[in-house]
Amino acid sequence: MTEDIPSDHPRHDSLVTRHRIEAGVDAGITSRQGLIAEGRGEAFDYLLGEETIPSADDAERAAAAQLLLAEHPVLSVNGNAAALVPEELVELAETVGADLEVNLFNRTPERMEAIADHLQAHGAPDVKGLDADERIPGIDHERARVDADGIYDADVVLVPLEDGDRAEALAEMGKVEIVIDLNPLSRSPRTAAIPVIDNIIRAIPNITAHARSLESAERDELEAIVADFDAERALHEAEERIRTGAGQEQ
Amino acid sequence: MTEDIPSDHPRHDSLVTRHRIEAGVDAGITSRQGLIAEGRGEAFDYLLGEETIPSADDAERAAAAQLLLAEHPVLSVNGNAAALVPEELVELAETVGADLEVNLFNRTPERMEAIADHLQAHGAPDVKGLDADERIPGIDHERARVDADGIYDADVVLVPLEDGDRAEALAEMGKVEIVIDLNPLSRSPRTAAIPVIDNIIRAIPNITAHARSLESAERDELEAIVADFDAERALHEAEERIRTGAGQEQ
Repeated sequence: MTEDIPSDHPRHDSLVTRHRIEAGVDAGITSRQGLIAEGRGEAFDYLLGEETIPSADDAERAAAAQLLLAEHPVLSVNGNAAALVPEELVELAETVGADLEVNLFNRTPERMEAIADHLQAHGAPDVKGLDADERIPGIDHERARVDADGIYDADVVLVPLEDGDRAEALAEMGKVEIVIDLNPLSRSPRTAAIPVIDNIIRAIPNITAHARSLESAERDELEAIVADFDAERALHEAEERIRTGAGQEQ
Repeated sequence: MTEDIPSDHPRHDSLVTRHRIEAGVDAGITSRQGLIAEGRGEAFDYLLGEETIPSADDAERAAAAQLLLAEHPVLSVNGNAAALVPEELVELAETVGADLEVNLFNRTPERMEAIADHLQAHGAPDVKGLDADERIPGIDHERARVDADGIYDADVVLVPLEDGDRAEALAEMGKVEIVIDLNPLSRSPRTAAIPVIDNIIRAIPNITAHARSLESAERDELEAIVADFDAERALHEAEERIRTGAGQEQ
């Protein structure tokens, strides 16, 4: 059914997103909070013009470089990310050699299993997060649980649609964080080394595309891309777009 | 539990809203679409500063005057409105002598009943919408169904959180529409005679308060309030606020 929406439909991303999120509810992947978060995202995406703005594309290129430079990159996956871009996450993980780890704000064994199964059904060879044998210091129990050989050990973590407390706690552990979020004013992207203010539906495939074109780049070229990326400026430009792009009709 | 949130909490409205929407899901009142819509509303309310801006207060006063002037005012109630402000809707209906009519985008007998029961449990003496013996011309079947002695017969209709098609169809029937919506750019408030760009949690009690203070006003005073209200300007000011108020931290 997703495939029935023509790719040139003016609200293509919004319709695909809505459809996948609904399917995520049926599969026990998307929570109530996830549906509300999806709505918040829709509003910000609408104000952004439902497209990848140039500063977001820069961030996605820097994210690709950062993931390629990492020793142990991990893509953290929550319910909405799994519902929206399962295949795209598996492709990105493959392209940059990252682990996939399920990590939920509202953790239940059923949802953990459903999400891991969903990722595996979309081609993930291995999914972390079910062991949960370590903890991120400084935040409360359930959200803190991670795999010792996953996020706990990672040097670079990509965290889509993250909550602010956990984003801060991960940064305090010294992880380099790439955060995908549609609200440039919220705490998580402001905590990130690389804030990506874009719809995850566009962001993940675009990071993968950048990673593919950078695959044979030298280490110092990748380092230069990361060093040149200006997080403050990217946040500012997204905010400006939300302000000044607000004139379009629905 | 709603009562446990101190009224001076900086995110009071947001927390109360979230709690009531969750309870609405448990009660079979709030749909998936309702949860997503709630999230969209949260984002716009956040950008508005989570307060009733002066132009919204003007709109709420004009709405009160318009409802008092009406021969047969009807408050249209959908799932989110019922979940968020059941008592407040009953009070407003009582204050201005309006009917309450349940009208759903995704109409099922179960949800219709659950919402009518919920309103009655909050003091509504009578709830319309279950007969559905008439139709609004020009829109598809389920959304079009209304009561012959309710919305179909009304001269003034208050429609919170409405979909654009139905808002347009009601306007084409010659109804004077008061639309409550947090997105000043969406079609429904742009169709309305009186667009109220505010959180329904603040808007409904404030319309009631204005109606009470106008209860003994002369007809020509009420007419002057309605005539003086400038819908274009109200939409513009809400949009401006979304743009320039975007600087606050979450």
